[in-house]
Parts: sequence; C-alpha cells; structure tokens
Amino acid sequence: MPEARRGTIAIEQRVLGRNDEAAQRNRAFFRERGVGVVNLVSSPGAGKTTLLERLLGDLRERVRMAVVVGDLQTDNDARRLRGKGARVEQITTGTVCHLEADMVWRAISTFDLAELDVLIIENVGNLVCPAGYDLGEDVRIAVLATTEGEDKPLKYPTMFKSAHMVLINKTDIGGVVGFDRDAALQSLSRVAPQAATYEVSARTGQGLARFYDDLLARLRPA
Amino acid sequence: MPEARRGTIAIEQRVLGRNDEAAQRNRAFFRERGVGVVNLVSSPGAGKTTLLERLLGDLRERVRMAVVVGDLQTDNDARRLRGKGARVEQITTGTVCHLEADMVWRAISTFDLAELDVLIIENVGNLVCPAGYDLGEDVRIAVLATTEGEDKPLKYPTMFKSAHMVLINKTDIGGVVGFDRDAALQSLSRVAPQAATYEVSARTGQGLARFYDDLLARLRPA
Repeated sequence: MPEARRGTIAIEQRVLGRNDEAAQRNRAFFRERGVGVVNLVSSPGAGKTTLLERLLGDLRERVRMAVVVGDLQTDNDARRLRGKGARVEQITTGTVCHLEADMVWRAISTFDLAELDVLIIENVGNLVCPAGYDLGEDVRIAVLATTEGEDKPLKYPTMFKSAHMVLINKTDIGGVVGFDRDAALQSLSRVAPQAATYEVSARTGQGLARFYDDLLARLRPA
Repeated sequence: MPEARRGTIAIEQRVLGRNDEAAQRNRAFFRERGVGVVNLVSSPGAGKTTLLERLLGDLRERVRMAVVVGDLQTDNDARRLRGKGARVEQITTGTVCHLEADMVWRAISTFDLAELDVLIIENVGNLVCPAGYDLGEDVRIAVLATTEGEDKPLKYPTMFKSAHMVLINKTDIGGVVGFDRDAALQSLSRVAPQAATYEVSARTGQGLARFYDDLLARLRPA
C-alpha cells in the first residue's frame, strides 16, 4: 500500500472514531427521550424523498415525526417535505459525501423532543460514504431502486451489510427497466442476510403497509 | 466549524494535492504517447457499463481502446466488458469511494500504450467523491440517468461543474419515470454551462452517433 493511502486510512479511522463517540451521545440522548431514529440511505435518485413524502402523510395519525435532510446543495428536499405536519430541517454539507453524528446533533438543537416520537434522517445520496458513519440511529434503511440494477448490493456491500431494513423501490417500473428480481433478492440474501427486505413503490404506495408496521415495531418496541 | 471537521478538511486538501501531482504525471505520460483518456462518472446504476458495452462495439473499427473499471467490490463490470476487443482491467477500491490517479497508474503499468488510442476509465459509482480527483484525463463525462430525477445537477453541482460532457441517459424510459426534460436541461445550463449535453439511450443506441463524433474529436484533436 502506498504511503499516502496508508496515511489517509489512519486519518479516516480517527475521524470515524470521533464520529462513533458523537453517535453514542446522540443515541443515549434520543433513547432517554423516547425518540426512535431512522437513518435513510441510498444512491442519488433512488426515491428517498418520494418515500418520505408518502410516509409522512400515511403515518401522521400514528406517530409524531420530524425529518432532517442532508444534501450537498439546495433545500429542494426540505421544501418538498414541508407542509405534511412534520418539522423538517435541511443540512447542506457542501462537498461532504455523508452526514455525521455532530451535524445531526446541531440540526436538532432547537427541536422539542418531548413532542416527538420518531426522527427520520434522510442522508446524502451516496451508496458508499454514509455506510461508515453511525448517526445514533435505531434503524438504518437502505433503498435500492429497480432502475439501478440488481447487482448493486454486490458492488456496494458495506452499505447493505450495515442496514436493518432494505427497500427495493420503484417495483412499479421494474419490468420496464428489465430488473432481475430473483438476482436482486439473491444478492441481498448473500450480502445482507441480517436485513428485512421489502418490495415497494413509493410512487404508487404498493407494499408499504407491511413496511410501516415493521418499522414502527422496531422503533417502539412493546 | 468544529475542530474535527476543520482537521479533516486540511487533511483532505493534502491528499488532493498529492493526487493532483500524480494526475499531472499521468496526463504528461498519456499525452506523450498519444493516448486520449476519458474519466466516466455517475451515480450507481446510471448506465456507465451499458454505455461502454455499446461504445466498445460501435467504435472498435475507428480507435484502439482499453478500459480501466473501478468498483468497491466484484469484477462484474470488467467481465461484462471483456470479449469486445479491448483490454479491460478492474480496480477494486474496498471502501474508497473514488478512483485516484495512482490507482490508474498502477492499473495501466502492464499496458502497451503504443497499441492504444483511447483509454476509458469507468469510475466508482458516486456523484460526490470522484469530483475532486483528477485522474489525468482529457475528457470527463458525467452520466445522469432520467430515472434519477431532473434535480440532480443542482443537488450535486461539483460533479457536473467539472464535466466536459454530460450524457442524459435512459431517455427511452424518461416518459415512464416522469422525467422533466426541460427542468433537467435548465439545471444543467445553470450548473454546468461549460459542458456539452447529449440525450442518449445506452440501451437502444439512440443519440449516440453525435456523442461519439464529438468525443473522438476531443480526444484526437486535428
């Protein structure tokens, strides 16, 4: 391994170590206040924001929610998600390819957690970087769109290995894009046997009911 | 800005500085040998490999090509691209979210450049990290799939700002996924006015002829 790369890795490990400490602080803080936390990760354009648009409407009678959205630039996603009864905060990261536990900590500093059951963090669209950054969440959900192809869990294993739940999204157009469902399920069971998998369409709502029930059960254990 | 993040940025700048030096060495080396170099970047699943499968067949009578493919894991892409008359080398980066100039240098160490006109580097699928890493290429091509949504240039501006050419891919299913073509072109002309834009389908071949001609003109200036 070249010197430069070895140095970079040592530094990355220190940064990750600091993030882990901040994530533990977040986790203890949220648990103490009874707030269940979700970290939602995927490639750009896999449908995270469309899913949240629907979820905020569908679950608003069952839980009190807030959202923190991460993007390099723009507050497009926060604007899309507002007006659905949940507080929404945008984090813009500039050139940073993932959210970090400290960014979440600062974003929620003015939230009244006593009025909250569930905090959903929509991470920066990226199948690589967010994998190593614990935000203090209870449940990590990775979204894989049928339009991305069935081989992505094999090519980006770290992200899928770290997920509690995997959503195969855009199933309504899986046929049109030639998505090989069996190969995708096989890849997932190989790379991420720990994850519960759901085939859904955030656009049509198909398959979401069972996902919602399981998600709430994970966030609010009896 | 917190101390940890400031330290990280200083380190990133040193790493980028070292990469820039390696990229300059690559560029001088390739120019001296008359090899035109392409750096192909996009989100996971935007269609880079499908594009290359077609391009290698379509251009094999016009130029002698080789490909270096970057992925975190698997040599799926290299296997897809072999048997089309071009040498293909796979780089697996582990957890690194981009290719670096030194990785390319090592991958081509056994290539006979005298037998080559064009080297195409397919980067790791990621709309963030590869933006800052010059590989010594002549032409950087960013691929945006209609399935990702028309707002991606605004949300990931650094990548599109650094591209010489932008391919809007999967135009054959743009209608099905509700892609807003005008909004996409407007986003691109705002964020990346320097880039020539092509609307193509790597799957059907639509729109590729003009792209090929322009690409070869950029790589082999008269």
